[in-house]
Amino acid sequence: MSIHEELTGIGVSVGVATAPVARIQAAPGVDPTEPKSTDPVADAERVRAAMQAVSDDLLARAAEANDTGRQVLEATAQMAKDKGLLKTVTKKLKTGSGVTQAVHDAAEQYAGLLAGLGGYMAERVTDLYDVRDRTISQLRGLPMPGVPRLEEPTIIVAADLAPAETAQLDPAKVAGIVTSAGGATSHTAILAAQLGIPAVVRVQGALGIAPGTRVAIDGGAGRVIINPVDADIEQLVERQRRRDEVIARATGRGATADGRHVQLLVNIGSAEDAAHAATTDAEGTGLFRTEFVFLDTITAPTVEEQTRIYSRVLDSFGAGKVVVRTLDAGADKQLPFAQHHDEDNPALGIRGLRLTMERQELMDSQLDALAAAWEATGRRADLQVMAPMVATVEEARWFAGQVRARGLPKVGVMVEVPAAALRADRVLREVDFASIGTNDLAQYTMAADRMQGALAPLLDAWQPALLELVRATCRGGAATDAPVGVCGEAGGDPLLALVLVGLGVHSLSMAAGKIPAVRAALSLHDLATCQAMAAAALDADTAAEAREAVLALADPSVQDLL
Amino acid sequence: MSIHEELTGIGVSVGVATAPVARIQAAPGVDPTEPKSTDPVADAERVRAAMQAVSDDLLARAAEANDTGRQVLEATAQMAKDKGLLKTVTKKLKTGSGVTQAVHDAAEQYAGLLAGLGGYMAERVTDLYDVRDRTISQLRGLPMPGVPRLEEPTIIVAADLAPAETAQLDPAKVAGIVTSAGGATSHTAILAAQLGIPAVVRVQGALGIAPGTRVAIDGGAGRVIINPVDADIEQLVERQRRRDEVIARATGRGATADGRHVQLLVNIGSAEDAAHAATTDAEGTGLFRTEFVFLDTITAPTVEEQTRIYSRVLDSFGAGKVVVRTLDAGADKQLPFAQHHDEDNPALGIRGLRLTMERQELMDSQLDALAAAWEATGRRADLQVMAPMVATVEEARWFAGQVRARGLPKVGVMVEVPAAALRADRVLREVDFASIGTNDLAQYTMAADRMQGALAPLLDAWQPALLELVRATCRGGAATDAPVGVCGEAGGDPLLALVLVGLGVHSLSMAAGKIPAVRAALSLHDLATCQAMAAAALDADTAAEAREAVLALADPSVQDLL
Repeated sequence: MSIHEELTGIGVSVGVATAPVARIQAAPGVDPTEPKSTDPVADAERVRAAMQAVSDDLLARAAEANDTGRQVLEATAQMAKDKGLLKTVTKKLKTGSGVTQAVHDAAEQYAGLLAGLGGYMAERVTDLYDVRDRTISQLRGLPMPGVPRLEEPTIIVAADLAPAETAQLDPAKVAGIVTSAGGATSHTAILAAQLGIPAVVRVQGALGIAPGTRVAIDGGAGRVIINPVDADIEQLVERQRRRDEVIARATGRGATADGRHVQLLVNIGSAEDAAHAATTDAEGTGLFRTEFVFLDTITAPTVEEQTRIYSRVLDSFGAGKVVVRTLDAGADKQLPFAQHHDEDNPALGIRGLRLTMERQELMDSQLDALAAAWEATGRRADLQVMAPMVATVEEARWFAGQVRARGLPKVGVMVEVPAAALRADRVLREVDFASIGTNDLAQYTMAADRMQGALAPLLDAWQPALLELVRATCRGGAATDAPVGVCGEAGGDPLLALVLVGLGVHSLSMAAGKIPAVRAALSLHDLATCQAMAAAALDADTAAEAREAVLALADPSVQDLL
Repeated sequence: MSIHEELTGIGVSVGVATAPVARIQAAPGVDPTEPKSTDPVADAERVRAAMQAVSDDLLARAAEANDTGRQVLEATAQMAKDKGLLKTVTKKLKTGSGVTQAVHDAAEQYAGLLAGLGGYMAERVTDLYDVRDRTISQLRGLPMPGVPRLEEPTIIVAADLAPAETAQLDPAKVAGIVTSAGGATSHTAILAAQLGIPAVVRVQGALGIAPGTRVAIDGGAGRVIINPVDADIEQLVERQRRRDEVIARATGRGATADGRHVQLLVNIGSAEDAAHAATTDAEGTGLFRTEFVFLDTITAPTVEEQTRIYSRVLDSFGAGKVVVRTLDAGADKQLPFAQHHDEDNPALGIRGLRLTMERQELMDSQLDALAAAWEATGRRADLQVMAPMVATVEEARWFAGQVRARGLPKVGVMVEVPAAALRADRVLREVDFASIGTNDLAQYTMAADRMQGALAPLLDAWQPALLELVRATCRGGAATDAPVGVCGEAGGDPLLALVLVGLGVHSLSMAAGKIPAVRAALSLHDLATCQAMAAAALDADTAAEAREAVLALADPSVQDLL
């Protein structure tokens, strides 16, 4: 029986899709009920067979993957046949461990060994853990963890997506994403928008949708229709058509109807992103997250390695704008090669600039590499370097000194700690520009964890308190002649973008796929209307009232963009 | 050899003391190197003997304790002889566990059993864990964990003090506290100030001071002098004398030199605190933390139990002011009887009002009990009820509805989330008053964990960004005719108290021992000077510059109060 039913959630990546559902499996742990090994020889054979099956499955997937994907899958398949690993498992079995416990413990021990060897071997730890999880699933008779092999366009359903899982998704096969957890600023939301995949998060009942069920989703309105009828699909398609039409009318640089220029920029996280972003009509990148350079390796990257990557990014954008954010590690992004502090509340801990002030060599290597890349690429790009998690004037001053000492042209700060926004007039005296990270700024302003889905309503970027801090930052920027941009998710919401521009924001950086709708929204409104919208939003008591008040002032066509 | 040396830290509880040092021992864990049990009968006898020794030691301490202390110690001593516990240990030994592992696991199992029985038995879990830690120490040949038995006035040295440990301290025997960790708003600092014990935290090298060494400390200036010479002690005593003299000159209600009334109130955490506070010349309590009513028991307290406690507190203060903060659980204060969320960043999680909105029965029982206590005590006190962790207008509105529905006279909000301060003009339309919790407000404004000692400089209450939010709250209060108080540590700093009054704060609530110095500081300055100080602090770039600028405007006698 196919029940026609509609679920709702938070739409976080616009677009519509209709497709069957596939589920993402969480990695299984050790089987808590398994008996101790009484026949280590037989059990070792069971593990060997499981590892062989894992290897075969990976090779089959590799055969269908693209170049990068194939290499990763083949390397993992090879790891699943590693004799050293199997030997370690056998030893664990001989001490009486159950089979999944033995696989788990052997992987731990082997990971330590690989990390100790450093270099290429150390980088294999990720593959090793993948093999561990797959082997344990095989042994327990559970579905393989992670992203299932997709044969056709599919709507992925999961509790939430880990960043690694999202990265494994083949955008060509993923028609949409639905999660039961998460929020507007969760990783799933950010990555889905980056990949241009329609997505709805915090959908109650999502995990109850059986694999294979057909669903239609509207990633703008946050609708998930189970077993849609033709009328549902027609309605969604018609909505998409109107949206395409409004977007097609606006072209060129971002600007309000009366010509106030608003730079539209792309958030990127790798040299590949940069190459892709350069093919769009964005004016550059407003947020180059450099973490991946550090997080993907077990050992700290050398200046030379970094120079190579930064040069590629700078080259991609020609004479365009390139805003580089220095390493934002700590909190949920732990460096494999750093001893992180044991923290009760890592989001309030030694992260971002705080970590690099403590570990000066990380800052040095990054800024040296940026300076070298800047020279190597002929100083063409409009290079701007900014630090994450700046809270005080002293920190801004220290960082500006570091950047200027290397002859880099422009230095700025991320405004994501409330203190920096409140004191923007002082902080911006020390630097050349500011970029507001609305996601973290909301997290601290509302004292609500971005990872705690139940608090999502507090993290709504329409919260007037958050807009107050955007205003304070823009006023500080105006007083010191420092341009203020926004690089959080808020800038990618076509309606909210108007409010930000009305508050005095000069540039908006977002996932590439969000730019057309924002450009269209800007082109429909003049600056005075944006300013009136900003005043209306600040005059509201609640996030919902703020949005409603702004919508009442907007051109009706904006509805088609949301 | 006695080396004369001086260490420095953050002075968090004023006063001077000279005494020998004693160390607080952390609870030991299971011995990771212990062999498996091969002779369970002999090992059980070893554990029995260790438990007997623990029991004897506790009884010896009980004989010297006061009434309350004796009961607790005797109950714990009895638990150390519990046959059921020993039987469970023996079973664990028979499965091959090492001795300390067996004690640990047996205690876990037994704790589950006690909690399941509920009521009186459930409340014994704390004693059980104490017995577990002491028995493991005895078995491992380590010093008993916790607070050592003090024979004479002693200066306690520890990494940091757990709230439970601080509560066990006999103020009559503790001349001072020195810790290597912590910060100005850590539990140690708050509790030391409440007990009126001089304390210095974040002292590098503190753990290197050998037990028995004589040290002199200045809990205002943050000095720790090891093996002090006579001149050191004379200097400290002279400082104390001048301080006493300045304090003695100011009496009566808190007020500026030109007569602007500033209510001086006490922060309390129990009915006992209330009884003590009522004997001081404070005008009441500005913060009655009700957590202890909930945190000390394994089962949720009934309305009747709560009514009894609240009535005692209301009675203590007669017609004085009693500001009750509803349950602030979550984060580092977990309720034994609630299923808490598993949170990556509990300080940014479901805590305070958020928890009681989710678990309405907790809010109901507390407000019903407050209403009953208010009636039972003849509606005499100036009762005011406020909620912790309010962030939005909606939350304030919801809470006000709950309180007013029960006929309670005044409702307010804690301002500790930046959003509430930023939107104080809106939030305060919904309620009658606000109380600024500077400790948590600083934590969120600076995005720096109060428990992460390395970030203590960011948490300095002199940070201009924090003062901006105090100003915003006071402006919101002025616009809505709602008085604004401060109940965080900032109000107890005599110099900073002047700035707060200058910003528009009407009342200051603090540890009882801090009131005389604050009263003295207020009496030395008129309101215009306080306002000039507020402007100077806001005009500074850094916390240090803010304090310096204010000190330059202050009466020189204030130096003696710091």
